[in-house]
Amino acid sequence: MSSAIIPVSPLKSAKSRLKKILTLEERKNLIKNMLLDVYTGLKNACSSIYVVSRDREVLSFSRELGVIPIPEENTRDLNDALQYAIEKIEDSTVAIVPADVPLLRRENIGRLIKKVENRKRSALICPSRGGGTNLLILNPKDIIKPSYEGFSFLKHLELCRRNRVKLYIYPSFYISIDINTPEDLGEIFIHGKNTYTYRYLRELGISTFPRHSSAGRFVIVRD
Amino acid sequence: MSSAIIPVSPLKSAKSRLKKILTLEERKNLIKNMLLDVYTGLKNACSSIYVVSRDREVLSFSRELGVIPIPEENTRDLNDALQYAIEKIEDSTVAIVPADVPLLRRENIGRLIKKVENRKRSALICPSRGGGTNLLILNPKDIIKPSYEGFSFLKHLELCRRNRVKLYIYPSFYISIDINTPEDLGEIFIHGKNTYTYRYLRELGISTFPRHSSAGRFVIVRD
Repeated sequence: MSSAIIPVSPLKSAKSRLKKILTLEERKNLIKNMLLDVYTGLKNACSSIYVVSRDREVLSFSRELGVIPIPEENTRDLNDALQYAIEKIEDSTVAIVPADVPLLRRENIGRLIKKVENRKRSALICPSRGGGTNLLILNPKDIIKPSYEGFSFLKHLELCRRNRVKLYIYPSFYISIDINTPEDLGEIFIHGKNTYTYRYLRELGISTFPRHSSAGRFVIVRD
Repeated sequence: MSSAIIPVSPLKSAKSRLKKILTLEERKNLIKNMLLDVYTGLKNACSSIYVVSRDREVLSFSRELGVIPIPEENTRDLNDALQYAIEKIEDSTVAIVPADVPLLRRENIGRLIKKVENRKRSALICPSRGGGTNLLILNPKDIIKPSYEGFSFLKHLELCRRNRVKLYIYPSFYISIDINTPEDLGEIFIHGKNTYTYRYLRELGISTFPRHSSAGRFVIVRD
């Protein structure tokens, strides 16, 4: 059996790089919609889904979704919070996914989890753009310590090597896309037409056009 | 049997977004190293590899590599040049790849081509970031017209739908990474340690550090 843990940072400070295009309330709603997409991608693949956060609004929204909330207590940083959550859960295999990867639901996560479940002392990692980690599956759940921030992809690789953990790298384009900048939203318009996130952005009157210049890959406009 | 076509734009105007960090000569060498990586990723998968270009230096470098050069003649744009190249080749299945996707060699291209070869009237597409197309495999070679520029990923999808072509989408993180900005080079440092492109960047004294801020995902520095 396997569980998923979704760490969510406090809503009021999150996604500040989207300030130019979205109000605080809209950024909060965007995060909730992305969380819904991530939940949808995980729900048939995991026996339990947990959200770890220090934000009461996130925890109560999660409870409504059918996700088990883990309130953070005295945790210093993301790795500490994840460690705390990992100790709380009972399943032997755990998948860690951030809340801002809505295109994850286009992948078959159940198949990836099965791969790791079927081999003791193994892990699976999906890169994010920028050297990060957007999916980490561990069996058993404490085979390596979560080591996010910085080039976490390289840190996780090195920890697996050092601990002789069988490592599967799954280089998924969809899972690599975390949403932080207006530019990032463009990918949702191309690849995420079936997501809650896309519908919410459309509701807000946001759309996108191609731009291939030094200024970036997308033009993002709002009515 | 299948062929690959690599379109290469004139060296002197290419990769202008890297001006701040690389001289013209270095940008030319970067393109050649990326072309070498793309060639390496394709060579065991295709019976013939073609480069289509109007640049004499590219054409002669390609010939040295063992690639068949197709000089562009009176072609108006990229799509026109590709159309011209497709008509010249004899194999029934063709793979189109830009020259600036060095991480392509981390994927098993032979397996992807086989998939398309085994099914008449089929195509396979890999997205690039920004709504583009970084790999397009067609069987037969003229089943749809290449439609690059703008959101070509969506254009190719629509053409396949309209022409009832069986379409495989292969969302590869590695193939999604085309190199246009200093920022893009960061991915080579994380995922491309076995590439010619990486070795060339290291030779130039370039390295990278993590940065998670509005300014981007990587700090790129040069000694």
